[in-house]
Amino acid sequence: MDCINKNEYTCTVEIYDSTLRDGAQSEGISFSVSDKKKIISLLDDFGVKYIEAGNPFSNPKDLRLFEEMKNVKLKNARLCAFGSTAKSENPEKDAGIASLLAAETDAVAIVAKCREKQVIEILGISPSDNLIFIEKSVAYLKSRGKEVILDAEHFFDGYLENPDYSLEALRASLRGGADTLTLCDTNGGTLPHDIERIVAEVKKILPEAKLSIHCHDDCGCAVANSIAAVRVGASQVQGTFIGYGERCGNADLSSVMPSLMLKCSINCEVELKKLRFTAKQIAEISNIRLRHNHPYIGKCAFAHKGGMHIDAVQKCPSSFEHVPPETVGNGRKYLVSEVSGRSTILAELQRFIPGLTKTAPEVEHITSTLKEREFDGYQYESANASFELLVKKELGLWKAPFRVIMYKSNDDFPAPDGEQQASAMIKIEVEGKTELSCADGNGPVNALDGALRKALLAFYPQVDSMRLNDYKVRVVDLGKNTDSKVRVLIDSSDQNTSFSTIGVSYDIIEASFIALVDSYEYFLSKDSTEN
Amino acid sequence: MDCINKNEYTCTVEIYDSTLRDGAQSEGISFSVSDKKKIISLLDDFGVKYIEAGNPFSNPKDLRLFEEMKNVKLKNARLCAFGSTAKSENPEKDAGIASLLAAETDAVAIVAKCREKQVIEILGISPSDNLIFIEKSVAYLKSRGKEVILDAEHFFDGYLENPDYSLEALRASLRGGADTLTLCDTNGGTLPHDIERIVAEVKKILPEAKLSIHCHDDCGCAVANSIAAVRVGASQVQGTFIGYGERCGNADLSSVMPSLMLKCSINCEVELKKLRFTAKQIAEISNIRLRHNHPYIGKCAFAHKGGMHIDAVQKCPSSFEHVPPETVGNGRKYLVSEVSGRSTILAELQRFIPGLTKTAPEVEHITSTLKEREFDGYQYESANASFELLVKKELGLWKAPFRVIMYKSNDDFPAPDGEQQASAMIKIEVEGKTELSCADGNGPVNALDGALRKALLAFYPQVDSMRLNDYKVRVVDLGKNTDSKVRVLIDSSDQNTSFSTIGVSYDIIEASFIALVDSYEYFLSKDSTEN
Repeated sequence: MDCINKNEYTCTVEIYDSTLRDGAQSEGISFSVSDKKKIISLLDDFGVKYIEAGNPFSNPKDLRLFEEMKNVKLKNARLCAFGSTAKSENPEKDAGIASLLAAETDAVAIVAKCREKQVIEILGISPSDNLIFIEKSVAYLKSRGKEVILDAEHFFDGYLENPDYSLEALRASLRGGADTLTLCDTNGGTLPHDIERIVAEVKKILPEAKLSIHCHDDCGCAVANSIAAVRVGASQVQGTFIGYGERCGNADLSSVMPSLMLKCSINCEVELKKLRFTAKQIAEISNIRLRHNHPYIGKCAFAHKGGMHIDAVQKCPSSFEHVPPETVGNGRKYLVSEVSGRSTILAELQRFIPGLTKTAPEVEHITSTLKEREFDGYQYESANASFELLVKKELGLWKAPFRVIMYKSNDDFPAPDGEQQASAMIKIEVEGKTELSCADGNGPVNALDGALRKALLAFYPQVDSMRLNDYKVRVVDLGKNTDSKVRVLIDSSDQNTSFSTIGVSYDIIEASFIALVDSYEYFLSKDSTEN
Repeated sequence: MDCINKNEYTCTVEIYDSTLRDGAQSEGISFSVSDKKKIISLLDDFGVKYIEAGNPFSNPKDLRLFEEMKNVKLKNARLCAFGSTAKSENPEKDAGIASLLAAETDAVAIVAKCREKQVIEILGISPSDNLIFIEKSVAYLKSRGKEVILDAEHFFDGYLENPDYSLEALRASLRGGADTLTLCDTNGGTLPHDIERIVAEVKKILPEAKLSIHCHDDCGCAVANSIAAVRVGASQVQGTFIGYGERCGNADLSSVMPSLMLKCSINCEVELKKLRFTAKQIAEISNIRLRHNHPYIGKCAFAHKGGMHIDAVQKCPSSFEHVPPETVGNGRKYLVSEVSGRSTILAELQRFIPGLTKTAPEVEHITSTLKEREFDGYQYESANASFELLVKKELGLWKAPFRVIMYKSNDDFPAPDGEQQASAMIKIEVEGKTELSCADGNGPVNALDGALRKALLAFYPQVDSMRLNDYKVRVVDLGKNTDSKVRVLIDSSDQNTSFSTIGVSYDIIEASFIALVDSYEYFLSKDSTEN
């Protein structure tokens, strides 16, 4: 079957994202409840069918998440809680199963060992008991109204050793009433030709079963494995949006989805144009930098370096672009001479100057300012308020609500007063009048924020209603030693809206201060135009 | 065909590395002549058959490299110069071909366009002329005694559009006497099932030809594509050692080779045990950090986090390890985290107190200390050195190499001296003697690092050989406003090893300082035990 250049979809496949559960097993990832809620909203907007959000039994943080999610309505996705089969033939007495029910999600995923060797050596129970536990666990969850997705752990290595037992485990799940059987390559060691052969065999043996595929990337083949499984009959793909997961990660859905949709005429029913945006947001929340060379979504996925390549790609884009970059929300990039992004900027400027055209000098001007800023490490995609301020300032539509004359920030160990290590002093000017104020705090940024807020309150009492909600720091540029550039993002809100600002500097205090000032400036100018 | 668990090789495949040519097209890579010579030596030691070292026509640096390599004898590899077919039917008059000969390598690789559309639109010549140029170029290089590897550019997209022309291009090369025909997926857009089908067809049509495969990773399938091609008849694999290359990179040989050797009984004739070492050295020379989750070679490729996983991998390694980590020169790793149990901690403690059992009071004690620290925001899985320090301190095996009496750090806007905004002062004590020193810097952390380093140098000259490589900041706990807890991770190294430390505080300066002090403490204690 040739999958290239088809325009119509021949079938549909469900996307099941486990960024919040299997992805959280990555080294260095630790999601807060609020992080998880943001990612759920992004995945739902993107269109994935299932969101595996956590394991309520092993993790108390996840229990709180499911509690908080009970009142949230999702547009596209079903929330799924993860657990395992009961440890006895009485699932109604199993604490793990009870916590799955307590999560109150529509769907639950339970993992069941399907490799005979594992059942004996790890669980230490008899293979036949394991089959009974599987069937009873599924049946009990079904009787409680759940959609049950059975994760057949170690299915492929089990099948290669003893296919009969692995198939028996699947049959036990079906007897229990499982809705979906997920074939898992748990240790990530299976290659595409084996995945293809085995999934095809299972499909033939159990034609009535709905099959899902769950791959790990230990051979660098998880994407290919997932595609191979779908081509021979799996109708659901499990993975994580950017491939996060323990060891080498899970199947990277950001590669699987566009390949299926654009090259195999298989519909994943997601908004592919939001692919890069969604991936970037998730990466930002996870505080993991998106690889520049990440297929489809990386900054350099459609970048051209050599002059000859640039010539060829202009004459015939398919020379070096396997898909049009816009289809996945990415853009062509020339590493030598930058010419991208103008239409985005135009769209932004038209909010302030309706009717502006692409060739207007303002567009040219802002484009080049933005390029300089981005070269310096700024990134306005996650800082809408700072971008609006930049545009207003560059267009001459800006009147500063205050000016910072000076600040001093100190951090002294041991704490000079025996209490706070950090203190700050600031002087600002508003229409010719100055105000000096100071504050101490948990840290120098907190102290500076306190001092600035106090000074501003002398002129603008409405500052009282503004809150800073989130503070993120990331190293953007690795210098020698601690000589690195940092990017600070601050999320703020008042009663009505929330907005984000950015600051970049080698100096973390300065970077934070720039973002802080932007947030107060944005808040005050927004306020003045609204009233 | 089932490739798992075979002990004997059924056939052999040649490894062709293009890190120095295609890899050099990566964003951010720029090899010096001496870099290239070091990488050639590493690849040769590892056992690859061909090293494509550069393009002598387009790059004068490469010309010098080939000049210098004329006197170097390689143990395993043949050096290969890269160029393209002549632009006329007189290859003897072609400047590109002349520079290929001037490189004086045993083998040459020349690229020939094999997609009819490209020949017309990009080269602007007739498809039949292109065939003549290919044949004559190959024949001329053969007459000059070269082994000729023909890179059939755009072969797969060409074949899908017009297989007859793409095959004609291969036949022209064979008429000229080409030794190897490399089928290239130039834009990286072809999926494994198409690669497999097309390579098998070509093998059937031209059974006498020696075929090679050259894939790019734009779909995240380059590794799977290469393996698929070898399984149906390609006897050479082109790629780059760690997958470097333009856009999304080339086929990653560090994944292809172990999968072929350990899972497909196909011999690549390389020293697999040196895989991780060679990759790390190449990454170091390229100044690109090796991804922690890189299949086979990453630091976390065999890392285990969840307590149940750790228990299972100890009882039955194949549960979560698809190959024994030693076979590729890597090792098993337990990530110390909130979800890991007592067995991880025990494994770590046994390094210091051999024979310790799970029920020893030390295990209990460290486990509860660790839980407290993790509750405070510490996370030791990415901070091995801080964890070792913690263990030593808790076990009473620790003598502090220095003590911090006080520090002061300032950040003043505008910069008091018109230059640096940040400055720091520190006083330390070593065996009754104190040292006070100060430094300014790009930011307060940089200034503190400078001051601490200066003070330490007065007692420990070896501090000079220690470098801080990476600095990471993350907000772990959202308080109100800027009142958030931050976690700082610092990666350091000396000539021999690298190590990571952590600091957590509401105060970003203090968090950084804690991690900084840990890294110097670890370095100095490591040093004293080694000598």
